[in-house]
Amino acid sequence: MKQPFALSPIKRVAIIGLGLIGGSLGMALTQGRIVEEVIGFDQDEEALSLALSTQTVHRVERNMAEAVQNADLVIMATPVCTYPSIVAAIKTSLRPGTIVTDVGSTKSWVMDQMKRLLPEGIAFVGGHPMAGSEKKGIRGADRYLLENAVYVLTPDRDTVPEAIDAVKAIMCAVGARVLKLSPLEHDQMVAVVSHLPHMVAVALVETLSEVAKSYTQAPMLAAGGFRDTTRVAAGDPRMWVDIAKTNREPLLHTIGLFRRALDRLESEIGGCSSDGTDQVASLQNTLSHARDVRLAIPGKAKGVLPGIHEVVVTVPDKPGVIGNMARILGEAGINIADIEILRVRERDGGTIRIGFYEAEEADRAVEVLAASAVIVKRL
Amino acid sequence: MKQPFALSPIKRVAIIGLGLIGGSLGMALTQGRIVEEVIGFDQDEEALSLALSTQTVHRVERNMAEAVQNADLVIMATPVCTYPSIVAAIKTSLRPGTIVTDVGSTKSWVMDQMKRLLPEGIAFVGGHPMAGSEKKGIRGADRYLLENAVYVLTPDRDTVPEAIDAVKAIMCAVGARVLKLSPLEHDQMVAVVSHLPHMVAVALVETLSEVAKSYTQAPMLAAGGFRDTTRVAAGDPRMWVDIAKTNREPLLHTIGLFRRALDRLESEIGGCSSDGTDQVASLQNTLSHARDVRLAIPGKAKGVLPGIHEVVVTVPDKPGVIGNMARILGEAGINIADIEILRVRERDGGTIRIGFYEAEEADRAVEVLAASAVIVKRL
Repeated sequence: MKQPFALSPIKRVAIIGLGLIGGSLGMALTQGRIVEEVIGFDQDEEALSLALSTQTVHRVERNMAEAVQNADLVIMATPVCTYPSIVAAIKTSLRPGTIVTDVGSTKSWVMDQMKRLLPEGIAFVGGHPMAGSEKKGIRGADRYLLENAVYVLTPDRDTVPEAIDAVKAIMCAVGARVLKLSPLEHDQMVAVVSHLPHMVAVALVETLSEVAKSYTQAPMLAAGGFRDTTRVAAGDPRMWVDIAKTNREPLLHTIGLFRRALDRLESEIGGCSSDGTDQVASLQNTLSHARDVRLAIPGKAKGVLPGIHEVVVTVPDKPGVIGNMARILGEAGINIADIEILRVRERDGGTIRIGFYEAEEADRAVEVLAASAVIVKRL
Repeated sequence: MKQPFALSPIKRVAIIGLGLIGGSLGMALTQGRIVEEVIGFDQDEEALSLALSTQTVHRVERNMAEAVQNADLVIMATPVCTYPSIVAAIKTSLRPGTIVTDVGSTKSWVMDQMKRLLPEGIAFVGGHPMAGSEKKGIRGADRYLLENAVYVLTPDRDTVPEAIDAVKAIMCAVGARVLKLSPLEHDQMVAVVSHLPHMVAVALVETLSEVAKSYTQAPMLAAGGFRDTTRVAAGDPRMWVDIAKTNREPLLHTIGLFRRALDRLESEIGGCSSDGTDQVASLQNTLSHARDVRLAIPGKAKGVLPGIHEVVVTVPDKPGVIGNMARILGEAGINIADIEILRVRERDGGTIRIGFYEAEEADRAVEVLAASAVIVKRL
């Protein structure tokens, strides 16, 4: 008998859950015309109407089973612990040959569940895009969120090869970089790069909260370093409980590894004294090693731009100053590849970073802006 | 005898070390015309020439002793362990009545050293601005870096009151929010909000480095969460060794508190199972508490703007598109308060966040942009 999966390309996609990831996928598929039709389901009415007004989907359904009817691909983009009830609601509506995929943060548990729950004739491909945003839900959704993001697929030996290829093709079209890993490999790696940092950030916040009982001004002193290090601790507790439940053993193992690294560091700090050079070399080595490893991790991608060339301008805070600069650059034929306001003092001035694709553009920008901006600095 | 300190306002400032903080202070003082003259010293020739070309200082000196001659205020902006040798080099050149301050990360050790080393007639005021930047050194310096930043001063009972007031006045003029703490209070608070996060980030990076020996693709999966959580681990090892040396006891105490928070979290994770609701409530409570505490920490300030109103536009990636939008908004009399390119797909399109001071401006921006931009979304 012929394999029924993905003999034709995927034309109709149903997305269950129009949050950050589901919404971003929908926008990319709809606005990028990657498939013919995208149908969205969400429990939240506001998400549905926003999905329509922002061209995240072609149409919405208020009934999950109807949303998936005649879909070639169903994307589950809700917390992993909701999957069993979703499958229960949709399984009789899936026509044979439908591919189901997900975007959940843990994969071994998900693969096991789907194997048990999905009916014969439906192919499941586990997936996990490594992308996020500070803005949660569909309001944070962005057509370009997955651009250049690593998108992990976790087939096992039972996964239908044509289904893997079909999901891979869709995610490549969306701009993601697909990486195949086994479910267990995925779970152990994300335990380190995602789940451990979350729990560590939570413990840091809890420590501050404890200290703030005696030192009430301590939170005021939290500058960018503390805020960055603990940003993920503001994540959705329900999602993180799901992650802890479904990836417990790799997470506990990883916390053990972290504790050993911290112990080593603590003993090096304990050996340092302020009046000599006794054991500082060892601490210095660890800090230098960590810096080198950290610097080797690819930077936060906007999807942008190999080797952008930057200038920083200091300008007065007056109405129209950004528009004026953009006009000056436009008239000189210089294209702005990136722009960001770094800091502003109201009614005084601010600093703006502008990026260009080419070094010569940056150099020419310095020339043409020097006349009007107070100070231009090439970075 | 009359107190000689700061009877007149500070007119001449010498800055020893033109790095991120020294450079930013110099720019604010020079460009903001807060004092009459700013003299800069740095060992690095490139820093000196950049300081001159970016109006960070009025003039530079290649000899530290000459730099401080006739200064009303000397700002030490180098790693704390260099202070003793700096004081040795400048002390005979300081005229009586000069105020010396610093921007170092630890204060008890610094206060003790300065008390021992500075000659009679020189007032020391310990200081520590809570501000940083990803760009290091004078290239990261920004006239508005300290705008709205908390600036801690750590007087003790020996500190000359007029000197405290004089340094406070300067830092307020620079835009910082001055907070007085005892040296020990400062050291214990920064151990939690700054030194602990650094060491934790280092331990996280070391853990990833260990895991990457078996799972070579793990660093590829590090998305924004890991990068944010470990950003500070890329900091200068020499500065952090200095911090560990001079704030060892508060840091070790704080690591102990952190370890207890992590232990508690680990036991809650251990009690969670994927098939039930047994002990998940306790983990959920901790995660929710941490989220609430984290959300209550004031956001990263650009110096900007209470309650900015935002829209996100999805636009084609074509030359001049930013300039064109800025022109459209300018012609409609709408002022851009903030702008940032969120993501770009080269030769396809991108998403741009634009902020406005007033809600009506954001609403009108949606109207006028809807005609030209593909999609406008009000946040």
